Amino acid sequence: MTVRGPEEPVCLPQGFRFSCAQAGIKASGKADLALAEAPAGAAAAAMFTRNRAAAAPVLVGRAQLQESRGRLRAVLVNSGNANCGTGAAGLRAAQACCAALARSLGTAPRAILPSSTGIIGVPLPFEKILAAVPALAAGLAEGEPALRAFGEAIMTTDLRPKIASAGFRARDRRVSLAGVAKGAGMIHPNMATMLVYIFCDIKASSAALRRQLKTAVDVSFNAISVDGDTSTNDTALLLASGKSGVSLAASGVSGPFAAALRAVCASLAEQIVRDGEGAQHLVRLRIEAAGSRAEARAAARAIANSPLVKTAWAGCDPNWGRLFAMLGNSGYPFDPARASIALGPHRVFADGRALPFDRPAAHALMKGPEYTIRVRLGRGRAALEFLTCDLTEEYIRINAEYST
Amino acid sequence: MTVRGPEEPVCLPQGFRFSCAQAGIKASGKADLALAEAPAGAAAAAMFTRNRAAAAPVLVGRAQLQESRGRLRAVLVNSGNANCGTGAAGLRAAQACCAALARSLGTAPRAILPSSTGIIGVPLPFEKILAAVPALAAGLAEGEPALRAFGEAIMTTDLRPKIASAGFRARDRRVSLAGVAKGAGMIHPNMATMLVYIFCDIKASSAALRRQLKTAVDVSFNAISVDGDTSTNDTALLLASGKSGVSLAASGVSGPFAAALRAVCASLAEQIVRDGEGAQHLVRLRIEAAGSRAEARAAARAIANSPLVKTAWAGCDPNWGRLFAMLGNSGYPFDPARASIALGPHRVFADGRALPFDRPAAHALMKGPEYTIRVRLGRGRAALEFLTCDLTEEYIRINAEYST
Repeated sequence: MTVRGPEEPVCLPQGFRFSCAQAGIKASGKADLALAEAPAGAAAAAMFTRNRAAAAPVLVGRAQLQESRGRLRAVLVNSGNANCGTGAAGLRAAQACCAALARSLGTAPRAILPSSTGIIGVPLPFEKILAAVPALAAGLAEGEPALRAFGEAIMTTDLRPKIASAGFRARDRRVSLAGVAKGAGMIHPNMATMLVYIFCDIKASSAALRRQLKTAVDVSFNAISVDGDTSTNDTALLLASGKSGVSLAASGVSGPFAAALRAVCASLAEQIVRDGEGAQHLVRLRIEAAGSRAEARAAARAIANSPLVKTAWAGCDPNWGRLFAMLGNSGYPFDPARASIALGPHRVFADGRALPFDRPAAHALMKGPEYTIRVRLGRGRAALEFLTCDLTEEYIRINAEYST
Repeated sequence: MTVRGPEEPVCLPQGFRFSCAQAGIKASGKADLALAEAPAGAAAAAMFTRNRAAAAPVLVGRAQLQESRGRLRAVLVNSGNANCGTGAAGLRAAQACCAALARSLGTAPRAILPSSTGIIGVPLPFEKILAAVPALAAGLAEGEPALRAFGEAIMTTDLRPKIASAGFRARDRRVSLAGVAKGAGMIHPNMATMLVYIFCDIKASSAALRRQLKTAVDVSFNAISVDGDTSTNDTALLLASGKSGVSLAASGVSGPFAAALRAVCASLAEQIVRDGEGAQHLVRLRIEAAGSRAEARAAARAIANSPLVKTAWAGCDPNWGRLFAMLGNSGYPFDPARASIALGPHRVFADGRALPFDRPAAHALMKGPEYTIRVRLGRGRAALEFLTCDLTEEYIRINAEYST
């Protein structure tokens, strides 16, 4: 299996075309409209936010995927406006955008998945999108530059575009998957991160894609947190063109495909945390010996969402007591006498008490861009790796100045 | 009923003595040991943190209150060290401190409630406390200055001591309550805030005090949040000397006592939020038309614990969309079409959509030290007022530099 990061050439799946445009939603004048097109009849699976204030495009997209029985022709993404908190008018706006694009592509509106990201509570200027759709459709192009431009057009506070790809050989043919994502704040996915689109050229049913996506999301986008806030617009889409000629159902294909999909999702999830607003340190929380995966995830989230823990990380401060305290807030039983904590190679707590450790060395470790904190709960055999980052003054600056 | 804030003369309950000392736990050399003494047989009720990594003094205190059947002679508080994450040695240290003080006061160790606050995971230097206990006991004094000195000795990152008192007349006598508290960070109480001690001179059973305390804590310390982190050492104690000669069980006393206790708790809770680490704005979240008080509290906490919402407040930014988004994350059903949001007098969202509002005026309101945000959920008749504050760069600075 080949896995490629953001700086490497993309393993490009066959059958997709991409296009971007400036609709004028973003005041900056940057590209704010992006389109990805699949061949007619492409199979799709998507996961959406569990936030109950879900945005209009999430509600419309979920309905259209159901109506089309998991067949999608295109995804239309705008940045600069989330179309959330916009009521019935917001639903109509999302539907109008889908209808306009469907006309341009000669397909049905139910074959379009709409996505939006940006400010919440401001009406979507959908006339600007309608006006830009014909040129957007006319500009569709194949190839890596078009895919990369798509990835850049969906950015909001992201400093870097996020892209990962993977490929493997099966039945003498090549299967490729390429994913793009956006997200840097409001990252605490409970299903998927902000916006993730994974294109692949395998032949598969929507149901099979859904099983694959769910498994991969569970260990990637559902195992990261920047600030603990679950967005209203989170969407992860897996779209399969079938153009490789390889069927996911054929023997020996499902395993390599799952591995490739997992690698793409893991890379994108890590890129999101690395680009976390104001983040200076990537922290790998390795939760071990938990009673269940749910318990491990709850422990990781209690740590990852604590402002006190995250500010200690910002100060490169090996003050593990704050992390210890949060283990008591996970909602699960916690037995200090069986727990242990290690900062990188430095064991700091075990058997119910503090251990002497090399504090300057731990401080030096925490000055690095990335380190692992291992927590053993002593309650079972479940484990989980969870990625998160520190909370810095820069995060405050970015978010205190967003809308005004 | 008389209610007195921190700048006013204290309504001093009869029968209590106070003392402070420098045991040398704090590197700063400030007072770090505080003692409050009640007459023999005083009735007590306490509430402790629900954090499952509860500190040694919480475990010891809970056991001693049970053993003494709610009779307490004294409370011994140290700041500078939380005695948490310290295992069996921590329990022995807390017990040794209680035993030493019991000897000095001529009482049983079970009549002493220990409290600690400060860094987690560092062994309590209990020999320093043992050495200071005789002088501490010898220094016990009545009066307002002694009570105020007690309130100052329990501070950690607090900028200001917190004190409130109340009094009322009943059966031709005067009943007085005075409370002190400490807390500025790690404030998201789930039972009580960091440390709260309320002294009163009513005659009451421990069980009756407990009912009163629970009710008052529910609407005060359990309705505030600074940073969403529930501490390992939260304790709220209500101690009654009986010296007023008025019985809580006598007719017409329970109502005024409840009102006075609630006023003292509400004032202390508000003082804690006002002194929140780095806080520049006190925000009153008024949650209305909720399906239940639990639902109202969950909505308030979802808002109050969101870094994105709190940074918008720091920027005086009327970006209500972030707050709207968090209502979808409370764990309860949320129906945007029935909800409404107002920033002070400015209605910004109703009937499922954004309303036009005077943005500069809302910005000006949010520049003030204090304002109210009203959220109506449209699901029932429950309501709750919840106090919280903004998240500023100063919070990060304070907490990135704490232990090193």
